[in-house]
Amino acid sequence: MTTVLDRIDGPDDLGGLSGDELLQLADDIRDRIVEVMPRNGGHFGSSLGVVELTIALHRVFDFAVDRLTLDVSHQCYPHKMLTGRNEAYNHIRTKGGPAGYTRPSESRYDSFLWAHAGTSISTALGMARGMRDKDGWGVAVIGDSSINSGVALEALVHAGVMPDEKLLIILNDNNMSIAPTVGALSRHFQETCEAAEECGPADGEGANDHLGGFFTSLGHRYVGPVDGHNIESLIEVLSQVREGGRSTVLHVQTVKGRGHIEAEKDQWKWHAVGGAKKPGDEAVDFERVGQTPYTDLFVQAMIRRARIDPDLETITAAMPCGTGLRHFAAEFPDRCYDTGIAESHAIAFAAGLAHTGKNVVAAIYSTFLQRAYDQLFQEISLNQNPVVLAMDRAGIVGPDGATHNGCFDIAYVRSLPHIAIMAPRDGSELDDMLNMALDEKKPTAIRYPRAAAPAPDREYTRETPLAWGRSETLRHGADVALIAYGSMVYPAMEAAETMSGLGIEATVVNARFVRPLDRDMLHKVLEEHPLVCTIEEHTTNGGLGAACLEEAALSRRATDKLFPIGLPDAFVEHGTRTEMLEEMGLTPRCLVQTITHQLSEMAKRSQSEFISEADTY
Amino acid sequence: MTTVLDRIDGPDDLGGLSGDELLQLADDIRDRIVEVMPRNGGHFGSSLGVVELTIALHRVFDFAVDRLTLDVSHQCYPHKMLTGRNEAYNHIRTKGGPAGYTRPSESRYDSFLWAHAGTSISTALGMARGMRDKDGWGVAVIGDSSINSGVALEALVHAGVMPDEKLLIILNDNNMSIAPTVGALSRHFQETCEAAEECGPADGEGANDHLGGFFTSLGHRYVGPVDGHNIESLIEVLSQVREGGRSTVLHVQTVKGRGHIEAEKDQWKWHAVGGAKKPGDEAVDFERVGQTPYTDLFVQAMIRRARIDPDLETITAAMPCGTGLRHFAAEFPDRCYDTGIAESHAIAFAAGLAHTGKNVVAAIYSTFLQRAYDQLFQEISLNQNPVVLAMDRAGIVGPDGATHNGCFDIAYVRSLPHIAIMAPRDGSELDDMLNMALDEKKPTAIRYPRAAAPAPDREYTRETPLAWGRSETLRHGADVALIAYGSMVYPAMEAAETMSGLGIEATVVNARFVRPLDRDMLHKVLEEHPLVCTIEEHTTNGGLGAACLEEAALSRRATDKLFPIGLPDAFVEHGTRTEMLEEMGLTPRCLVQTITHQLSEMAKRSQSEFISEADTY
Repeated sequence: MTTVLDRIDGPDDLGGLSGDELLQLADDIRDRIVEVMPRNGGHFGSSLGVVELTIALHRVFDFAVDRLTLDVSHQCYPHKMLTGRNEAYNHIRTKGGPAGYTRPSESRYDSFLWAHAGTSISTALGMARGMRDKDGWGVAVIGDSSINSGVALEALVHAGVMPDEKLLIILNDNNMSIAPTVGALSRHFQETCEAAEECGPADGEGANDHLGGFFTSLGHRYVGPVDGHNIESLIEVLSQVREGGRSTVLHVQTVKGRGHIEAEKDQWKWHAVGGAKKPGDEAVDFERVGQTPYTDLFVQAMIRRARIDPDLETITAAMPCGTGLRHFAAEFPDRCYDTGIAESHAIAFAAGLAHTGKNVVAAIYSTFLQRAYDQLFQEISLNQNPVVLAMDRAGIVGPDGATHNGCFDIAYVRSLPHIAIMAPRDGSELDDMLNMALDEKKPTAIRYPRAAAPAPDREYTRETPLAWGRSETLRHGADVALIAYGSMVYPAMEAAETMSGLGIEATVVNARFVRPLDRDMLHKVLEEHPLVCTIEEHTTNGGLGAACLEEAALSRRATDKLFPIGLPDAFVEHGTRTEMLEEMGLTPRCLVQTITHQLSEMAKRSQSEFISEADTY
Repeated sequence: MTTVLDRIDGPDDLGGLSGDELLQLADDIRDRIVEVMPRNGGHFGSSLGVVELTIALHRVFDFAVDRLTLDVSHQCYPHKMLTGRNEAYNHIRTKGGPAGYTRPSESRYDSFLWAHAGTSISTALGMARGMRDKDGWGVAVIGDSSINSGVALEALVHAGVMPDEKLLIILNDNNMSIAPTVGALSRHFQETCEAAEECGPADGEGANDHLGGFFTSLGHRYVGPVDGHNIESLIEVLSQVREGGRSTVLHVQTVKGRGHIEAEKDQWKWHAVGGAKKPGDEAVDFERVGQTPYTDLFVQAMIRRARIDPDLETITAAMPCGTGLRHFAAEFPDRCYDTGIAESHAIAFAAGLAHTGKNVVAAIYSTFLQRAYDQLFQEISLNQNPVVLAMDRAGIVGPDGATHNGCFDIAYVRSLPHIAIMAPRDGSELDDMLNMALDEKKPTAIRYPRAAAPAPDREYTRETPLAWGRSETLRHGADVALIAYGSMVYPAMEAAETMSGLGIEATVVNARFVRPLDRDMLHKVLEEHPLVCTIEEHTTNGGLGAACLEEAALSRRATDKLFPIGLPDAFVEHGTRTEMLEEMGLTPRCLVQTITHQLSEMAKRSQSEFISEADTY
C-alpha cells in the first residue's frame, strides 16, 4: 500500500496535501520511526515529538532558500524523510547510511553536521543576517534543555538587539532533556505555560507578549505557547510569523515520544533506543558473560568511595544516565549536581567546590568536555584545582559518529600545564586510578571508552602496583616495543601474542599516564628496541605519540625509532565501534599488519643501506 | 603624612573606622591608583569604579571565611590595597611584583588567579555550596559586560534553582565593557534603572522585587539598583543581605573611572592606561620610527580589502578597540559585529554568516578564542566553514601575564582537522596571508603577537611568493637549520647572523604554515643538516615542533635531528614582553646560546661515540 509519505520526494510535494493527508503523513512518519529504530537504534522520543512541527515548517518555509537549523539535530528523522531520504532512512546510523544527525553532504536541506547543543540560534542569526539582501529566513528549532547552553544564551542576548532580522527561534518545549530538564529556565517555561492556560491560546500577532518574561526582558518578540501537535494551527502561526517579517521567539509545547504509548510514559528510557545486536560487534556488546561497561564500573567505584569519603561530590551536565551518575544520585542526592547542558559552568562550579576542600569528580563525555576548554585552562590548570575529570566516551563511540567521538581529549588537555592524564586498561585499574587521583589532590583527567571492560577473570595480572606517573610492562620481547594506554592495552597484548606466533617478540607497556609521562620507561624501551610503536585511540596530532616524540626530542634521544599509531588528522564517521576501529587500523589484526609492515620496511632499509655502504667501499 | 590607608594592614582594621574615615579611605585608595597607574600601566577606570563597593564588602563580610570572587579581577586594586598589599602595589604588573589580577599565591583573600570573564558566579556558587556546613558566603562581583558570557548565564540558570545557598551575586553595572557594553542584557539593566528611578530606592528586603525581570524570571531574589558610591548605604544593604542568609542578586550602579574627571568623561580610553615606557622594552615600543603594531596593520589590511570586497564582514567579542576593528566599524558599520564577551556565540554566528557566502573574519585574542574551542570543533572544523580566525595577542603579551598569554592556540587548533594555521613574519606577510585565507575559502587561523611589526623598510626581501602550505627559505647554511614562524622568524635570522660570526652557518626557514605543513621543506632540511631546530613562541606541547616530529615519525624520517625550542609546559608570568621572552629563551641572544649548546653537545656525543666505537675494536 502506498502511504502519503511514499509520495513525498521533497518538501515541494507538501504544498498539494489536504489537511487529512497531512495528518496521515504524520502517522506515516511515526510508523517509519517505530519500524526502523528498534533495528538501527537512535533517537526515538525526540523525533516522535516534532513530527507535526517539521511538517508545518516545511509547508510554510522554503528551506532551499530559507535555512533550517535543528539544534543537536537528534530530532531530524522527520526532516530527513521529508527531504528525499525516506528510503535511505532504513540504513540510518549504519556504516555508509545516513547519519543520525543533519549532514550537508546528504542534502541541501541540511545546514550543518552537528550534535553538540546550543549553536542553532547563533548560526540561524548569522544566516538570517547573511541573507539580509536575499529575503531568506534563519529558523532555529531548539529544545528547552539545549537552550540552557551558554552559547545559546549568548545568542539570545545578541539577537535581542537585532529585532529586524528574519530570525525565528522555535523553543521546542517538551520539558525533557535526555533526562528531565533541570534548571531555572525550564521552570520558567513551565510557569509560562501554566499562566498561558488562563489567558487563552496565542496567535502570531503576539497576543501573549506579556508571557515569556525571560525572552521579553531581552527584547525578544515572544509568541506562544502553542500546541506542537496541531499541524493546522502550527501552519497558521508560522505563516503569521513569516508574514510579520521580524525576529520572533515561538514557544511550542510538544510531547516527547508523542504517539508511542510506552515512549510517552517513560520519556527518559525512550529518548534513544539501542539497535538490534549485530553479530561481531563485541566492542559494545555489554551482555557478553561477565562484561560490564566502563560507565557502570565508574559509578560503582564512585559509590564505594562515597560511602567512606563524605567529601566526595560529583557533577554531570545533563547526563545523569549516560555517565551512570543517576545511581550515585539515588544514594547521595545532596552530593550529585546536574547543571543541565552547561559544561563550562559545570567545570567552574566544580572548581569552586574543590576550592572549599571537597573531593570533586566531574563526569562529562570526552567530546562535550571540549565545551569547557577555557575553564579547564583557567579554573583547573592555571589554579591547579584538584578536580577529577571523568572523560567517558573517549575514543570511537560508534553509531553517533564524528560529533560524539572523543578523539581530541589528550591533545586539548595536554596543551594545558598541570593536569595529569590517565587511562585504565580495565575495570580494576579504573577503580584504582579514580581513587589515586582523588587521594593525590591534583587536577586529573581519566579517559575511558564507550565499551565493555574486560571481564574481571580475564584481566591481565597486575605487573606493577599503580604509582603516580609510572607505567607497567606487561610483556617483554626484543624485536619491537608497543606503548599503549587505556582501551588499546588489551588489543596491543593480543597483537603481541599473534606476532609471537610469527616469531616476532614484542614488549608491551601499559603507559597508564600520558602526563606525567613515564620518562624512564620511554628512554629504556627506546634503548632496548629497534622500533617503538605508540598505540592510541586518539588522533596522532598531540596524543601520546606526540608526547613521547616531544620528550625524546627534548632529551635528545633516538626519536627515529618511534612510530605513532592512532587516529588520523580527520573525522571518524559513524558505524559500529568494531567496524570503525577496524577501519582505523586499531584492532589486533590491523595492529599486527601495521607493525610487521614497519619491521619489514626497516629490514629492507637496513638491507639497502648495507648494500649502499658496500657500494661505497 | 599618614593616610587612613596606611593604617590598614588587613580587612580587620576596617571595623574600627568611622564614617568619615571610610570616606577618607576611599579617597586614599583613589589617590594610590592615580599615582601608580601612569607609571606601571593597568586597569584604571574599573578599579576607580569599585572603591566604595570593595570597602563595604570587606567591612560586612569576612573573606578569610567567606569567599570573594571578582570576575576578571581587573578591578582588584582596592581589594589588594585593603588586604595587606598597599606597599607592594607600587610594583604591580612588573616582573616579581603583584599581578594585575587576583592571585592566591599573594594572599589568602584571593580565591582564584584569573582574568577570563564570566566564571565568578559558578565558582562562588560552588564555594557557597561547598561551605554549606560552615556557614560561609560565596560572593561574586561581576560587571554588566562579563555577565553576558555564556558561562555566567549558565551559572545564573543553575543558581536559580538553589535559592537557599549563601550566594551573593553583585552586578557591578557601569554600563561599560572595555568599550560601551552591547547587547540586550545591558539594555535591560538600563531599563531597570530607569524604572527604579520612579519607584524610589531599594532596600535589602527586596522592595524592588518587581524589577530586574531577567533575574526574577530565573527565580533569583533581586535587590537593587543601589548607588555603588555610597559606602554607608552599601554597608547597610550588604548587611541586610547577609542577615537574610539566602541567594541574592544585588544590582549596584557604579561609574567607571569615578573620581577622576578625565576617566569619567572618556571611559573607553581610560579603561586601562599604558605604563611609562621602559628603556629596552622594544618589543612593545610601538613608537619607534616606522614601527606599527600588528593590530593596526591587520585592520588596515581589512579596510583595504573591504573596499573592494563587499562580502567581507567581521566580528569582535567586546574588543572593538583591542582588535583594531573599531576603525573598520567606523567605515563599514553594517559589516562589523560586536557580540559582547561571547566568544562561543561569536564563532557560531561567524559560521552562520560564512554559510551564506559572506567572507568572514573573526578577530579574537588567542587566549580568549579558547572559549570557543567547541565551536571551532563543530561549526568550523567539522563543517569546514571558511571563517578566518585573526588570533591577535598570540604568544607572550607582557604585563597581563599568564591569563592573557596566547601560548596554546597552535595546539588546540591543530588538534582539530581541516583548519589551516599561518603566522606572518611581518606586516606585508600579514596582509598577504589575510587575503590568501579569504581567497582560498578555507577555515584558517592566523596568529600574530602583541608587538610592533618590523618597519617596512627593514623587512627581509620576500624569497618565495606566498603559496598555500609552502614555506620560504631566507638563508642557507650547512651546520644547522632553524624552522621558525611568525614572531620568531626575525629573531631566528638575527641569531643566524650572530652565529655566522662564530663560524656556524645556519639555514633559516620561515615556515609560514603550521598546517598544512611544508613536508617537502621538512624532509629536505632534515636530510641536509645534522641539527634542525624549530623555534616558536608557543608551548612545545603540540606546537610546530610537535607537528614536525609527528610528520617525520609518520614518514619514518630521521626525527632525532629535530630539537624543539619554545615555551615550557608551564604558565608564563607577568613582566614586560621583552623580559619574558628573554626569560623563556626566545630572544636572539638566548637562541644562539641554546643552538650552539646543542651543537657542541652533538660534537661531544659523536666524539665519545667515536671513542667507544674505537674501544670495541
